Amino acid sequence: MWQLSRRANEIQASPIRKLVPYADEARKKGIHVYHLNIGQPDIETPPEFWDAIKTYQQKVLAYGHSQGLASYLKALSGYYHQCGLEISPDEIVVTTGGSEAIVFAFTLICEPGEKIIVFEPFYTNYNGFATMASIELLPLETKAEKGFHLPSREVIEAAIDDDVRGIMICNPNNPTGTLFSYQEMEMLADIARENGLFILSDEVYREFVYEGVHTSIFDIPNVDEFAIMLDSISKRYSACGARVGCLVTKNHKLHQAAVKFGQARLCPPTLEQVGAEAALKLGAPYFEKVMGEYRKRRDIVYEGLMAIKGTVCVKPAGAFYAMAKLPISDSEEFAKFMLSKFSYQNKTVMVAPGPGFYASPNKGSDECRIAYVLNTESLKDAMQILKLGVEAFNSR
Amino acid sequence: MWQLSRRANEIQASPIRKLVPYADEARKKGIHVYHLNIGQPDIETPPEFWDAIKTYQQKVLAYGHSQGLASYLKALSGYYHQCGLEISPDEIVVTTGGSEAIVFAFTLICEPGEKIIVFEPFYTNYNGFATMASIELLPLETKAEKGFHLPSREVIEAAIDDDVRGIMICNPNNPTGTLFSYQEMEMLADIARENGLFILSDEVYREFVYEGVHTSIFDIPNVDEFAIMLDSISKRYSACGARVGCLVTKNHKLHQAAVKFGQARLCPPTLEQVGAEAALKLGAPYFEKVMGEYRKRRDIVYEGLMAIKGTVCVKPAGAFYAMAKLPISDSEEFAKFMLSKFSYQNKTVMVAPGPGFYASPNKGSDECRIAYVLNTESLKDAMQILKLGVEAFNSR
Repeated sequence: MWQLSRRANEIQASPIRKLVPYADEARKKGIHVYHLNIGQPDIETPPEFWDAIKTYQQKVLAYGHSQGLASYLKALSGYYHQCGLEISPDEIVVTTGGSEAIVFAFTLICEPGEKIIVFEPFYTNYNGFATMASIELLPLETKAEKGFHLPSREVIEAAIDDDVRGIMICNPNNPTGTLFSYQEMEMLADIARENGLFILSDEVYREFVYEGVHTSIFDIPNVDEFAIMLDSISKRYSACGARVGCLVTKNHKLHQAAVKFGQARLCPPTLEQVGAEAALKLGAPYFEKVMGEYRKRRDIVYEGLMAIKGTVCVKPAGAFYAMAKLPISDSEEFAKFMLSKFSYQNKTVMVAPGPGFYASPNKGSDECRIAYVLNTESLKDAMQILKLGVEAFNSR
Repeated sequence: MWQLSRRANEIQASPIRKLVPYADEARKKGIHVYHLNIGQPDIETPPEFWDAIKTYQQKVLAYGHSQGLASYLKALSGYYHQCGLEISPDEIVVTTGGSEAIVFAFTLICEPGEKIIVFEPFYTNYNGFATMASIELLPLETKAEKGFHLPSREVIEAAIDDDVRGIMICNPNNPTGTLFSYQEMEMLADIARENGLFILSDEVYREFVYEGVHTSIFDIPNVDEFAIMLDSISKRYSACGARVGCLVTKNHKLHQAAVKFGQARLCPPTLEQVGAEAALKLGAPYFEKVMGEYRKRRDIVYEGLMAIKGTVCVKPAGAFYAMAKLPISDSEEFAKFMLSKFSYQNKTVMVAPGPGFYASPNKGSDECRIAYVLNTESLKDAMQILKLGVEAFNSR
């Protein structure tokens, strides 16, 4: 009686959440925990965002347009123009975070049970979105030794069967920090074009690039029928709690259907769109400052990792993550060890174990994701403690 | 190539949206349109809501807890206690509007293709939520002549087949304004208990009761395993753009799965939970004042409807809607007529045609939903214009 659905039984628990009791335990013992495990930036949300919300003058917090506030859609179009992308307001649907954009995209292009190709390691919440949409993810492996760049065209094409409806890419990548090249994005577009697939391009870290140049799916010619860009202000303006994202497509039929999905759930949050619109006006100078800070952190993390003998990590070029193969046998055990058995000067670090970023079993067990969302001083200290922790773990 | 999914093709366009061009046309001609067509209250969002947001002190708008902010969960539990319901914070999941709560509930209890019984006419967006969750709605008719009260136990039980997983009820009802009795809620609980079904109880209009007493699904004994309450602050505090709702269940396994769904999409909007928490402190005096206003409006609408000869409408006891059977042949045509062919003293009314609230074809064509979300003076005027419009429509 009262059985839950398979979707309810299958949806994954947050792989990081499992470690929370261990972190709580550490704190109870008076140990300071450096959180390198989550992508919650410490950077302040821009004052312009707060000011716009705090001076909002309407007396009734009414339903907004289902597609998004008209002025915000226009502002987004202007922002994309600054990014070199020509996107009109009527090619955008504002969503409740990037999360909703992804669930909408999965649902719009797949029947229940159909598949989307992803490159693993991948952002762990893609699993949950897939369950919500009743679809399957088909993971293709990428390797730490190659900086987690894409497999060859042959490998990708060999994986395409009748149930595959799209290929998902996150550029720059969470969790690996990999910046995919123009050639890689072009290859995916070619494969999609020839095989009638959609490309789902998660570009929420667009500005977070420390070497080279970001390639949007819309930088590639002739993708209008099948390109779907997923975006969010969460990381860009350090406003994760705002829940403002968007879905962008030049496929008119797809856009119309996305708007209808939007109508069904009425509207995305109004106030945060007002804040986001103000943030969009900050333009390039804001990002230069923020990216300067993240670049310093990236360098600290990379140097810290290289100081751990046996680590494999190609210098990450984007986002604010590094996925490192560490000289450890079991990263889940290692993460627990760091929280429950280890401390240095009453401090320890919390990392995200690799397996949470893989759909395939038994992968990523010697990998950890490091999010560099702490100030440079804390980060230096944290990387030193990580090194000592690895040594202690291996000489248990 | 690049076919969309059946879900994308099937999701309904907002039935009211079809009329928007006609309303725009009327406005262009300088005609004032009284909007009786949407459930967007004109009542001001409480100052306490705005103040809490405008004095929010955090510098980073960070991810909140996936289940909802701890302090808001506690405040909700206190609010339910005031409503006579014992709900602990760990029986609640805060959602992005009531919309997300409904999509979660559908997805948690149904495989794709399985069914939920609804009583039509019903809130039109249930159709969209069903498409999003890849489930089917099984509509059972209720009648204007009987005040849209529930069909008999026999009728409901006869509709249950192996694919039915739950029964959805909205009390007080949108679109009919019907307040379902304790006996009706108890009957549904009995049917659910005997047939292993869930009850999905949409109680977003709980306080909007003008005659009699509201019955929550949790007022009925022995429902803990199968009762799911869906709730939202949108109407209660006139904060539709906030997107803060919740799902309540005492079924622990179901709650755990709902939390995992919550983790997948990270969190509901943070700031609006802060505002909602402040609004919850307003307590009974706030509702007394607001409901006094709505009661006056309800009386104006009911009297206005009774002044139209041939109208069938049992006095609605709750929510802020009346679903009236009018002496017209085709309510879609009537709604268009009112916007494009009719005006009185340069004013007209926009109503929501009945068929949008039915899943069965050819139903509701002589019915309209009237939302009483205007001040009393405007509403009196609007009801007078509606009467004249019906007469003009019938003497075309």
